[in-house]
Amino acid sequence: MNKLKSLILAVTAILTGSTAWAYDGSCLWLSGGDNDNQAVITVPKSKSPTVAIAAEELNKAWHGEPLRLEIKRDKNLGNEGFRVYRDKKGLVLSANNDLGLLYGSYALLRDNAAGKAIALREEIPAYNVRVLNHWDNLDGTIERGYAGHSIWNWNELPDVVSPRYREYARANASVGINGVVLNNVNASSKILSAEYLAKVAKIADVFRPYGIKVYLSANFAAPMQLGGLKTADPLVPEVAAWWKAKADEIYKLIPDFGGFLVKANSEGQPGPCDFDRTHAEGANMMARALKPHGGIVMWRAFVYSPADADRAKQAYIEFQPLDGKFDDNVIVQIKNGPIDFQPREPYSPLFGAMPQTDQMVEFQVTQEYLGHSNHIAYLAPMWTEFFDYVSPSSLKAIAGVANVGNDTNWTGHPMAQANWYAFGRLAWNPQLSSEEIIDEWMPMTLNYPENTPKEVTDGLKKMMLNSREAVVDYMMPLGLHHLFAFGHHYGPEPWCDIKGGRPDWMPPYYHRADSAGLGFNRSSSGSNAVAQYPAQLAKKLDNINTCPEEFILWFHHVPWDFKMKSGATLWQELCNRYQSGVESVETMQRQWTAAKPYIDPELWNDVNERLMTQARDANWWKEGCLLYFQQFSGMPIPDNVTPPVHTLDQLKGIKLGISNYECPTPELLNSKR
Amino acid sequence: MNKLKSLILAVTAILTGSTAWAYDGSCLWLSGGDNDNQAVITVPKSKSPTVAIAAEELNKAWHGEPLRLEIKRDKNLGNEGFRVYRDKKGLVLSANNDLGLLYGSYALLRDNAAGKAIALREEIPAYNVRVLNHWDNLDGTIERGYAGHSIWNWNELPDVVSPRYREYARANASVGINGVVLNNVNASSKILSAEYLAKVAKIADVFRPYGIKVYLSANFAAPMQLGGLKTADPLVPEVAAWWKAKADEIYKLIPDFGGFLVKANSEGQPGPCDFDRTHAEGANMMARALKPHGGIVMWRAFVYSPADADRAKQAYIEFQPLDGKFDDNVIVQIKNGPIDFQPREPYSPLFGAMPQTDQMVEFQVTQEYLGHSNHIAYLAPMWTEFFDYVSPSSLKAIAGVANVGNDTNWTGHPMAQANWYAFGRLAWNPQLSSEEIIDEWMPMTLNYPENTPKEVTDGLKKMMLNSREAVVDYMMPLGLHHLFAFGHHYGPEPWCDIKGGRPDWMPPYYHRADSAGLGFNRSSSGSNAVAQYPAQLAKKLDNINTCPEEFILWFHHVPWDFKMKSGATLWQELCNRYQSGVESVETMQRQWTAAKPYIDPELWNDVNERLMTQARDANWWKEGCLLYFQQFSGMPIPDNVTPPVHTLDQLKGIKLGISNYECPTPELLNSKR
Repeated sequence: MNKLKSLILAVTAILTGSTAWAYDGSCLWLSGGDNDNQAVITVPKSKSPTVAIAAEELNKAWHGEPLRLEIKRDKNLGNEGFRVYRDKKGLVLSANNDLGLLYGSYALLRDNAAGKAIALREEIPAYNVRVLNHWDNLDGTIERGYAGHSIWNWNELPDVVSPRYREYARANASVGINGVVLNNVNASSKILSAEYLAKVAKIADVFRPYGIKVYLSANFAAPMQLGGLKTADPLVPEVAAWWKAKADEIYKLIPDFGGFLVKANSEGQPGPCDFDRTHAEGANMMARALKPHGGIVMWRAFVYSPADADRAKQAYIEFQPLDGKFDDNVIVQIKNGPIDFQPREPYSPLFGAMPQTDQMVEFQVTQEYLGHSNHIAYLAPMWTEFFDYVSPSSLKAIAGVANVGNDTNWTGHPMAQANWYAFGRLAWNPQLSSEEIIDEWMPMTLNYPENTPKEVTDGLKKMMLNSREAVVDYMMPLGLHHLFAFGHHYGPEPWCDIKGGRPDWMPPYYHRADSAGLGFNRSSSGSNAVAQYPAQLAKKLDNINTCPEEFILWFHHVPWDFKMKSGATLWQELCNRYQSGVESVETMQRQWTAAKPYIDPELWNDVNERLMTQARDANWWKEGCLLYFQQFSGMPIPDNVTPPVHTLDQLKGIKLGISNYECPTPELLNSKR
Repeated sequence: MNKLKSLILAVTAILTGSTAWAYDGSCLWLSGGDNDNQAVITVPKSKSPTVAIAAEELNKAWHGEPLRLEIKRDKNLGNEGFRVYRDKKGLVLSANNDLGLLYGSYALLRDNAAGKAIALREEIPAYNVRVLNHWDNLDGTIERGYAGHSIWNWNELPDVVSPRYREYARANASVGINGVVLNNVNASSKILSAEYLAKVAKIADVFRPYGIKVYLSANFAAPMQLGGLKTADPLVPEVAAWWKAKADEIYKLIPDFGGFLVKANSEGQPGPCDFDRTHAEGANMMARALKPHGGIVMWRAFVYSPADADRAKQAYIEFQPLDGKFDDNVIVQIKNGPIDFQPREPYSPLFGAMPQTDQMVEFQVTQEYLGHSNHIAYLAPMWTEFFDYVSPSSLKAIAGVANVGNDTNWTGHPMAQANWYAFGRLAWNPQLSSEEIIDEWMPMTLNYPENTPKEVTDGLKKMMLNSREAVVDYMMPLGLHHLFAFGHHYGPEPWCDIKGGRPDWMPPYYHRADSAGLGFNRSSSGSNAVAQYPAQLAKKLDNINTCPEEFILWFHHVPWDFKMKSGATLWQELCNRYQSGVESVETMQRQWTAAKPYIDPELWNDVNERLMTQARDANWWKEGCLLYFQQFSGMPIPDNVTPPVHTLDQLKGIKLGISNYECPTPELLNSKR
């Protein structure tokens, strides 16, 4: 909603005597505050803006008993932790410092909003670095953003500071996010120019009271592009000196600057390997420039050369030998899986394979491969699944690629707010379950009345909790991956094979369908990617009979008539999974429909229409993949599967005109005869 | 397939040593003949071209024992009947004349093709007049034709006589059709000009040996438009004289000319009422011109004025009082139902209500309201359903609006050939069951091998037999009618309400949906259309509790929560019927898929794609109607119904660009957000 419309609604509300605001999704899970709040809040005397924010939030929305906030030395709590306890005078929230009080306040308000009793507890975050990565370009577009343009208005900055920056900081702080990389990893050097650093500093000023540090994606060739040097070779002293001077310049403007995120020698980005140096040599050179100021380098391990036979092995091959070679303020940032944010991947074998190196995981909050902002795909189950394999304690930090844009509701799909929320909560506490998180988020955001029947709210919970598995089923079940349309990564194109394109950007590279079967043989008889995993797991994955079926086509080329655990053949099972994905979306539609009487009509309609799109898309995926793979299996689609209503040729004819920030809308055309 | 392509295929077949012709649907249910036929056929010495045709057909395809054809006086057999019997010398086909032998030959070949034992029998047709009405315009377009342009090439005629005219005559004769009205009932006077009559005569010459008479649709104002008279008043002697002279002119060219079909004072056509004369006065005047030559007038009762409250009552009101006023060579031609060829209508109450007047039924073979040439809708069940109410013996003749065009396969949809076939067979013998007819047609046309599994052929039979009920269910169940899009009558537009349009051309006129319920109250408390039916039936229809449910919304405005026989409310039942229609098409898809190994691939693919369109359209109908009616019922769509994947607004946005002879292809678009 634009400001004018808000104003009109406000005036309308006054005229009609109503105090209710029309839903527009802009409030996220946060309270807008009540006018009649009578809670008694005692805060420490302080000029800290952070404490002021905590007090303001509590005054607006705290409905509990009287509450006292206190700064109190407690080495257990660290810089951000807090404690909730009772003394003779009543309920107390204490912390070592302002920020702990702010986090504690949001935690208490969460309990309040969920209608829970206040739990006395001590909380400290699992990681010191909990960052969102924005893939926002300086021209306002967002790579893989589906909620409008970038919220950073670089043209207005530094003169105009949008009130949205503060709203954004508030939302992040409320879920525990304490760092933001402002710009795309495919970075323009311009962000490091004096002109842009002045703009960045303005954003940092807004973020600071909310405990959020600003980071920047750095282009490794910046000394050449920006500094006029002839090289960016990390071992050339002039290059190191340029970075040192740049760091000094940044910290003068932003004393709490977080550091750099670097995508180097990946998908065309420059990097140390261009100068025959290692990733470690490149990362360390930059880290040393930041070190005196306390900054860090997050160095991405998302690399794959066109040369190697199996892309899934690349990052390991390139990074594992560098273990122990990185400085202590470098963290290697690794995507959760070895390929690229697919609906389901096994974890990247680099995790745990570099014991002398700090590692962090990079999750994707934006739904590049999960239906953009058209599909409900609650991602906490995907992330906790990762933690089932990779112990959270083995990681140094955590990053998520943001799903935020300048849409009124921030995330395009109203339900995608849950992923922003869940990422923050898991970054704070990776032990939380998907269900606990949805139990917090749902009532705060959907705002249904307290007397909403339990079967309705249970239905909504199930809708969210099952949604990611539904997407896996209708897009890429059983370990299939990268069947997406070239470019926009929205619809199915398992047939896509562009002449002259990189083979490892083409679906047939990944699914390897032929008359014998389906799947990529990464077992010991194939690319042997399994050998990159710890021995016991490797053995399990290597054997087609013990490999978990959700990964079977990731690791094996499976015969079409292979007997699955269900007793069905691979082909039948594949058909069943796609059908099940479609039916899951139908179930989600029914669960949402049952909630209609209890949900704001604008919100309900918005989600309902997107669910219809999701249902159509699920069928599109099902038909496209089954009709395509059927060419290889030569087997009939079983009777329990709804027969396709398009031919493969019709589906191949669908070409989406998707830009990188518009909500895509596939057209399922009938053919012209 | 065009002739050149046929030639190329023939050459290819010779080169490859194959004798099989590629399927193109042009042969219909007829045999192409075998090269190795050794059957012994004896025919009477005769110069009759009809006997020559009979001999040729038998020589080509008769696989039975030796057969003797004889002309033999037998008053029981009339002009067209035949007898099959055995004497000491073997099997005999006898008839009063040439034509009987031809019909008998086709009957024997049918037995042969179906692999049946030869039944000894006597057959005479139920009606002397068994006509197809072509709604072909002189410019080559066809009103409500979905298989290409008209087969009559008026521009080439009389110089060029297409070989297709003979093929068409052969097909008609093979199923017993003995008359063809060449031009549209919305008639151009030009057809009666000397120029066109010369063309018509050429067609009549081709038809004659096949026993087929030519008829013409006559424009009542022809004396003015063509003759330059100032009036067409039937009581003005000059007008009558003009028609007499015209008849004489025609019979000079075409001695066996059948007569005129007239649409008068209906939908803008001129007629006797323009001159304050009755339909009888108009019809009789024309009949008297034809009478000396043995011609007849078929006078349509399809009339409805914009004035009356209930269109369903119009024809009865206008025609019933004229009973006994028509000359004996006039037949009143009445559509099967009182409105207009809907997927299901009760029979027109005019039938049986004019005991002193000859009546004929007008069926629609072309699928104007039944999915055009995209949907399988085998119509024999609809026509035999009519005969359940109206005794065939009460009728004088029978007409069907043709579904033939210049498509290679004649009817657009290959399975629509079955409707042409079934109409002819029922015109000959209305006692045949839908199943008997499909048992004849299916093996001859689909040409599957003899060892095709019975479950497969049973599936195909079910596919055909259930298809019309499927269409009723997904388009207009429970007596709903006229929910079609304006103009093309293809997709759903229950919401269609064009400002300034005739109310009785708009769906809301017919469905009468409101918050109280659904349906047109034609009971004694409403328009009282029920009173036009015989007393006992009227009583049954008048009572909402005894009215057959398939007609309940035709005769009653039924409350949404009315308890149906199933126990469900009207709303639930409506939802269930639409869902059932969609699922029926899915079942048809499965039945067709099971037959894939036994069916010519080109035929299989063609039908398969059309079934996919049908499945999409079924869903389009379901969603459009349920979402529209839900606005009135205010009730939720039950859980057993697949949730809609489009909003009502999206569906309202679908506008088809359908011309009157192209195969329509609706585009189910996603909305743009």
